[in-house]
Amino acid sequence: MRKGVMRPGHIQLRVLDMKEALGHYRDLLGLIEVETDAEGRVYLKGWTEVDKFSVVLREADEPGMDFVGYKVLNNDVLDQLQKDLVEFGCNVEEIPAGELTGCGRRVRFDSPTGHMFEIYAEKEQTGKWGVSNVNPDAWPRGLTGMKATRFDHCLLYGDDIDGTLKLFCDVLGFDLAEQVLDENGDRVAQFLTASMKAHDVAFIKHPEKGKFHHASFFLDTWEDVLRAADLISMEDVSLDIGPTRHGLTHGKTIYFFDPSGNRTEVFCGGDYHYPDHEPVTWTTDQLGKAIFYHDRVLNERFLTALT
Amino acid sequence: MRKGVMRPGHIQLRVLDMKEALGHYRDLLGLIEVETDAEGRVYLKGWTEVDKFSVVLREADEPGMDFVGYKVLNNDVLDQLQKDLVEFGCNVEEIPAGELTGCGRRVRFDSPTGHMFEIYAEKEQTGKWGVSNVNPDAWPRGLTGMKATRFDHCLLYGDDIDGTLKLFCDVLGFDLAEQVLDENGDRVAQFLTASMKAHDVAFIKHPEKGKFHHASFFLDTWEDVLRAADLISMEDVSLDIGPTRHGLTHGKTIYFFDPSGNRTEVFCGGDYHYPDHEPVTWTTDQLGKAIFYHDRVLNERFLTALT
Amino acid sequence: MRKGVMRPGHIQLRVLDMKEALGHYRDLLGLIEVETDAEGRVYLKGWTEVDKFSVVLREADEPGMDFVGYKVLNNDVLDQLQKDLVEFGCNVEEIPAGELTGCGRRVRFDSPTGHMFEIYAEKEQTGKWGVSNVNPDAWPRGLTGMKATRFDHCLLYGDDIDGTLKLFCDVLGFDLAEQVLDENGDRVAQFLTASMKAHDVAFIKHPEKGKFHHASFFLDTWEDVLRAADLISMEDVSLDIGPTRHGLTHGKTIYFFDPSGNRTEVFCGGDYHYPDHEPVTWTTDQLGKAIFYHDRVLNERFLTALT
Amino acid sequence: MRKGVMRPGHIQLRVLDMKEALGHYRDLLGLIEVETDAEGRVYLKGWTEVDKFSVVLREADEPGMDFVGYKVLNNDVLDQLQKDLVEFGCNVEEIPAGELTGCGRRVRFDSPTGHMFEIYAEKEQTGKWGVSNVNPDAWPRGLTGMKATRFDHCLLYGDDIDGTLKLFCDVLGFDLAEQVLDENGDRVAQFLTASMKAHDVAFIKHPEKGKFHHASFFLDTWEDVLRAADLISMEDVSLDIGPTRHGLTHGKTIYFFDPSGNRTEVFCGGDYHYPDHEPVTWTTDQLGKAIFYHDRVLNERFLTALT
Repeated sequence: MRKGVMRPGHIQLRVLDMKEALGHYRDLLGLIEVETDAEGRVYLKGWTEVDKFSVVLREADEPGMDFVGYKVLNNDVLDQLQKDLVEFGCNVEEIPAGELTGCGRRVRFDSPTGHMFEIYAEKEQTGKWGVSNVNPDAWPRGLTGMKATRFDHCLLYGDDIDGTLKLFCDVLGFDLAEQVLDENGDRVAQFLTASMKAHDVAFIKHPEKGKFHHASFFLDTWEDVLRAADLISMEDVSLDIGPTRHGLTHGKTIYFFDPSGNRTEVFCGGDYHYPDHEPVTWTTDQLGKAIFYHDRVLNERFLTALT
Repeated sequence: MRKGVMRPGHIQLRVLDMKEALGHYRDLLGLIEVETDAEGRVYLKGWTEVDKFSVVLREADEPGMDFVGYKVLNNDVLDQLQKDLVEFGCNVEEIPAGELTGCGRRVRFDSPTGHMFEIYAEKEQTGKWGVSNVNPDAWPRGLTGMKATRFDHCLLYGDDIDGTLKLFCDVLGFDLAEQVLDENGDRVAQFLTASMKAHDVAFIKHPEKGKFHHASFFLDTWEDVLRAADLISMEDVSLDIGPTRHGLTHGKTIYFFDPSGNRTEVFCGGDYHYPDHEPVTWTTDQLGKAIFYHDRVLNERFLTALT
Repeated sequence: MRKGVMRPGHIQLRVLDMKEALGHYRDLLGLIEVETDAEGRVYLKGWTEVDKFSVVLREADEPGMDFVGYKVLNNDVLDQLQKDLVEFGCNVEEIPAGELTGCGRRVRFDSPTGHMFEIYAEKEQTGKWGVSNVNPDAWPRGLTGMKATRFDHCLLYGDDIDGTLKLFCDVLGFDLAEQVLDENGDRVAQFLTASMKAHDVAFIKHPEKGKFHHASFFLDTWEDVLRAADLISMEDVSLDIGPTRHGLTHGKTIYFFDPSGNRTEVFCGGDYHYPDHEPVTWTTDQLGKAIFYHDRVLNERFLTALT
Repeated sequence: MRKGVMRPGHIQLRVLDMKEALGHYRDLLGLIEVETDAEGRVYLKGWTEVDKFSVVLREADEPGMDFVGYKVLNNDVLDQLQKDLVEFGCNVEEIPAGELTGCGRRVRFDSPTGHMFEIYAEKEQTGKWGVSNVNPDAWPRGLTGMKATRFDHCLLYGDDIDGTLKLFCDVLGFDLAEQVLDENGDRVAQFLTASMKAHDVAFIKHPEKGKFHHASFFLDTWEDVLRAADLISMEDVSLDIGPTRHGLTHGKTIYFFDPSGNRTEVFCGGDYHYPDHEPVTWTTDQLGKAIFYHDRVLNERFLTALT
């Protein structure tokens, strides 16, 4: 949080069919459905999230990610970062408060990898779902499916990941927590954090700009990852890989697809990071193990199925 | 235990190199090395096992299983079953006490699937390893690797599994706990138990006689399965598949290979069985899910890599 | 199962208020409510149990246990054991089929500790709740509360535990799996099993006859024990002790009370037993650790709150 | 990290006998022994900690805490905070680099609750213990005991907790994550964080100044908490309470004592916090549940055994 960016606050995903998408994000993942806005977008959140929403689903002809937004400490930070983004050379657009219901003014910008990001300082705080802020129980009754606790991060594919690293670290105050270097010492993957988490966003080098690999949601335990795997099978959902562990971040994880073809991850555990930590490095000769710690082999689908 | 057969008591495996094999069974699996006999065979056991040994490694030119032995209640049972085996038509051989150090008289017999089995009534009881039988602690200090608790069962491939079912159920008093039936209602896999366990031995139909698929060892928890997976990667051991769950028995599991090519499983959990339970049935159109509950697809290696 | 007794099959408990009792056994424990009989008794079961029911609640003026029943292999076993019980000197009564809906003829007998037991060979088999016997999923959707999987055992207090040991071991074929011996070598607690479980029934020496300490239900994991503990707190249920581990059996456990004052346990894990195993012995100088492995001190309530 | 304070970096504890203390902190907790300095102080760390040490043991006549230190982003932050501390009215002392081997210049200050704190910007970084920073395995071989991963926080008792709150929040940039308010709305406990953790330090109101309640170390899982509980029993260590969960922070926890009477906690899980989150509040009428979520009753020892 060196420059006042706190956390991933929301992600807007394109889905082909809203009803099917709700079967995935609400019933299977267990996100809480919050509301539907005038444009028909549906808002959801994980039960531990204090802000009103963190996932926005928009019905569209193609799957993928519209944008991901980060919440900053306050409006002073927002103003300063807006200037810095312009100075860095981003195309910066201001989205008025209320365009997403309950969300304040957003500053939208593009990245050298061709993705759309946002920062904002204000969002209605409705509190954790199902537990009070006074004498709160350990967890709420009535959760469904995988009981995902929060939107955690996303992984994006694009070409100029060096440029995007500069943008996120120099302008937005993220740190490089983990990386993959090829035999020439060039970075082909970067995991960036604005907090103690091993990643608040990650990028993998890819010839095409602006691709979306997955949105990730946090679970509490390895037992919960098993339960997610069981549900994926019981609901006949398309599995990508897992349960397994990553080498990078050491998170315990499973990947699967929403009905539109967008990839979803649920995971638990993993490394923590502080700003004075040297980045953890994986080398491409160990790329299989870096990605899938147990199999030590990449599946082609994981590299190429993008939206 | 309808006819007095209690449990799988030992398995003798052929390994190409004893030193490497001990790296696998002792250091990685965490079995306790008990002794080496005059023939150079090495005896091991899981720490919860009360009898002196349960795994015997024999150096040989080819990997595979020599035999698996079941302990029966007492010598009366042994005498009766010996007669019954002869009457059933098995080739029955008597192995004198002491041929395996610490083990009493064994009755060895072949099965219609071409495997060698044994029953015996007596084996030296040295107690659980590292914990007393008086005021015993929850677990012993000094375990290594995966901390496998016991030899649990084996899975064997062969042709006449109907004949072997008769042998195990009618003569030895096992029950059919779980099975796979093909579209004609023919049994292609059978999981047999003499106890509450979902399987004390299992068979899969296969054109060739006498093949060995894997020996399986019990772990306490799904966390232990993860730990096993991590160790497999850290030690660069050949992984077959996992961590995952089976549809059959619902055990949580991981498969990997010893340096000789014999497959090893460690697993936890799973269904229980009583003699009055109808067998659980899987149908071949769901075979992928029956074997690998999460992937729902068989890997070719799992079906064909046999020793 | 040396004499054909398979398992604890049902327990009939007295409760002061049926509606409150259902809040405990159905909503909190997560047992499945099966039916109400003509006498107003309510039948329940754990979801993994194949037989129609395992818990019967009867509204009465005093809490406690009416009887616990064990299922035997078949009617031949039932006939033989009936004779043996008479010969042993029990007061034996025959309860006609149908007195418990769906249950066959029961042979009821008293024990030297003053408890009422039953054996029976037949009960309607309705299958596991919520999962098919063909291609069964790993667990059913729609479970509530602690998701107790089965009625596992009960612990009873009484005076002549030596007499009851004879009855259970010599007549019914149970084994002594674990015991507590006092400084004179007298047995003050005995854990008996007819299976691989560390106890299918247990007795503690106590001056008064016929007292009930707790009914116990099986959970899958230590995470489930935590979840049970959380629910006990969230529902403001009276806790006895836990989460903790026992020294005896090494099960991981938590104890709490139903609204009538009957004690309930949910637990997971623990030792296994085979008939050739020497009993595990705890000595009374380590009684605290034997009962509560972590605290190593008994709470007075655990010893004296009986129904 | 609003003002550049990153994390708890070290704690110096007084122990009566160094050899016994090492039995506790190194062998039981599983901290890594790093070195002994010229004064005989012994340095240790959790294996995930990148800096050289986090725990310093000093042999003394009385148990307790000498000081706890926080690492800040850089020397500019250190200089600024030093000025701010003086301005706030703390007694500020500068400790030269090297007084703790491998640690840079420290700024020591007292708090209104009578405790000694430090901030520093530099400490030798020796990396995680037993795993490389390049292609790192998931965990190192050779860990012992409870395998504590890091020094996490401490809980301190003192009188003027309002003054200390001002110091930590206004001067050092901590946030109030959780609190206990009495019936008059006065704060009697405060959990403060400089990160996403629910607490980097905590204070409970107490008539006496400068008391130490416990130092806390992080474990990965609830299974690890059980393992810690088992070890406490196996090593006959004095247990305070647990395994259990806290209401405050919802961490899963166990407390026990070192041979000098200092309390140690190991825990896992629990809530996360961001600077825009309202503090979570517990009220004193629910204090039992706030502290011990399952028992819902305080034990006297937890409140009064201080060093």
